[in-house]
Amino acid sequence: MNLAKSTYQRIVLVSRPKGMPTEENFELQTLPQPSPDSLGEDEVLVSNHYLSLDPYMRGRMSALKSYAPSQVLNETMIGATAGVVVASNYVGLKKGDTVTGHLGWAEMGVINGQQLRRIDTENIPLSAHLGILGMPGVTAWYGVNVILNAQPGQTLLVSAAGGAVGSVVGQLAKLKGCRVVGIAGGAEKCRHAIEHQGFDACIDYKQMGSKDLDKEFVLALSQAAPEGIDLLFENVGSSGFDAALACLNPHAKIALCGMVAGYNSRAEPLKNAGKLLTMRATLQGFIITEQLDSWPQAIAELTELVINKKLACRETVAAGLAAAPGAFIGMLNGQNLGKQLVRLAD
Amino acid sequence: MNLAKSTYQRIVLVSRPKGMPTEENFELQTLPQPSPDSLGEDEVLVSNHYLSLDPYMRGRMSALKSYAPSQVLNETMIGATAGVVVASNYVGLKKGDTVTGHLGWAEMGVINGQQLRRIDTENIPLSAHLGILGMPGVTAWYGVNVILNAQPGQTLLVSAAGGAVGSVVGQLAKLKGCRVVGIAGGAEKCRHAIEHQGFDACIDYKQMGSKDLDKEFVLALSQAAPEGIDLLFENVGSSGFDAALACLNPHAKIALCGMVAGYNSRAEPLKNAGKLLTMRATLQGFIITEQLDSWPQAIAELTELVINKKLACRETVAAGLAAAPGAFIGMLNGQNLGKQLVRLAD
Repeated sequence: MNLAKSTYQRIVLVSRPKGMPTEENFELQTLPQPSPDSLGEDEVLVSNHYLSLDPYMRGRMSALKSYAPSQVLNETMIGATAGVVVASNYVGLKKGDTVTGHLGWAEMGVINGQQLRRIDTENIPLSAHLGILGMPGVTAWYGVNVILNAQPGQTLLVSAAGGAVGSVVGQLAKLKGCRVVGIAGGAEKCRHAIEHQGFDACIDYKQMGSKDLDKEFVLALSQAAPEGIDLLFENVGSSGFDAALACLNPHAKIALCGMVAGYNSRAEPLKNAGKLLTMRATLQGFIITEQLDSWPQAIAELTELVINKKLACRETVAAGLAAAPGAFIGMLNGQNLGKQLVRLAD
Repeated sequence: MNLAKSTYQRIVLVSRPKGMPTEENFELQTLPQPSPDSLGEDEVLVSNHYLSLDPYMRGRMSALKSYAPSQVLNETMIGATAGVVVASNYVGLKKGDTVTGHLGWAEMGVINGQQLRRIDTENIPLSAHLGILGMPGVTAWYGVNVILNAQPGQTLLVSAAGGAVGSVVGQLAKLKGCRVVGIAGGAEKCRHAIEHQGFDACIDYKQMGSKDLDKEFVLALSQAAPEGIDLLFENVGSSGFDAALACLNPHAKIALCGMVAGYNSRAEPLKNAGKLLTMRATLQGFIITEQLDSWPQAIAELTELVINKKLACRETVAAGLAAAPGAFIGMLNGQNLGKQLVRLAD
């Protein structure tokens, strides 16, 4: 009997973060592996190869009422995973199949087979199914196509342009013929957005002094988007959002996808909300898991674009489950470029 | 020759207000009456009986870029009027016809007949065509029917509930089967909304202490709308808007019609914008003059409701053109109940 294989690791939330999470909020636990013989009806044992880290997880760590229930303390942290079936009592899946699901921050897990999605890894790497072909990619697709309905010649601004969602938003909008401006933190992210993802301009907010951030932001935006902003895909909130409101064109559309800046602290109040009226703007807050009808079309279109190399797919990958809390905190601090993943197995 | 009849009065803007307008920003002028013989092709001479005073006028008095051009200094203040044709070179109108148009703050004026609308005053008083059957009524109708698409059982909140738009919004929503909550300034306005316009509840913001206005507002709203807010018709901005955001239900809809609180001073920053995301809200800023396609249906439906006495129509009427600046300032301070008008002739 191979003892090394008879256990697996998982991470539970042991306390709720106040402000930015710390490593102490998490605990790495070692548990005995579930036996294939113990699987119930329709259950599947999955070995997780990749864990997806996403900003929404910070919201779940709070006890506050939001659009989804809070993460339960001392249970496996929730999260999307991609992996390989080890054993299956579900008729639609067999050993060796590659699947995505929500098995959480864990090296393996047991789940009802209906909650797994079998995926193609012949033409597309396993990890991409958590990023550009997973929740972040569908989020970007839905915002650009359905909410913003981007048209050639329009100027689109996207914040967190270096992140998993923002980088896809910008690329999709370029394919639609938009002028695309990003906001990102750091020269490397901005250079990457312009050189590898076709952005027309990218504003590095970390280059800004803080004396009159509002004015500086508006000035930078009016230079990067001299004809004003027609479409805004907002991931961050805070000063950048406020400055974007100040630069809206008449009948601008806003897809409100995230307010990351407010996840760890009280969000900065919005000074330019009056522009929503004077510019007759339309704003829609959305959560992609409520738009399940759109997923098949989104994934079909994104898959074709990835296979035809029309979409570049950038990832930041941490090694091993123990690195997940640090990688998650780093992501909230904007240290990732593209999709943040944790590799759990090869 | 009757000298008293050979002149007329108008009011021009002589300086742009800083903050709240004052009487000194306006000048009453006496001019010789236009002669019917001097009318050009298609021109009509109109004697104005009522002038409409509306919050949007404050925006026009500023030099700031907005959705409409600024009021030109030393020219007749813009504004909607209702009156009687004195002489007409326009084939569609004859002497004695009752009309609405935009002749401004003046007792009479000459205008191209195509810019006048002939109105029925047999079943409906002349003044109503500037209020419930004019721009404010159509604004309310469009917000309730098109943007909010109010449904039975939903809770609708409207601010400036005692105003020309808000009082119609509440009544239309009641007819749709909504629970209707208003925010208004003063006990009389609130009593009127409940007793005469069918509101289920009305919050008097003037009763609030200012120690922790945000909390007090949220508490008042959660008592008046215990099941949360599904639909928000926003006329004011400021603390009430912020508190309403805090009480939104999932998938709430917001018709953003006015931000009066910010017209005379810098608007208070919005603290609860994050709720637009977490509640997956949809917000639409709108200006009713951009929705001309909707006017015929709106006016037809409103006319039927007024004739059938399903809509109560409250007005505050100042006497004589000279009273217009004071009445306008009073309206910005919320002293009117229902539609603010100036009677110019009997």
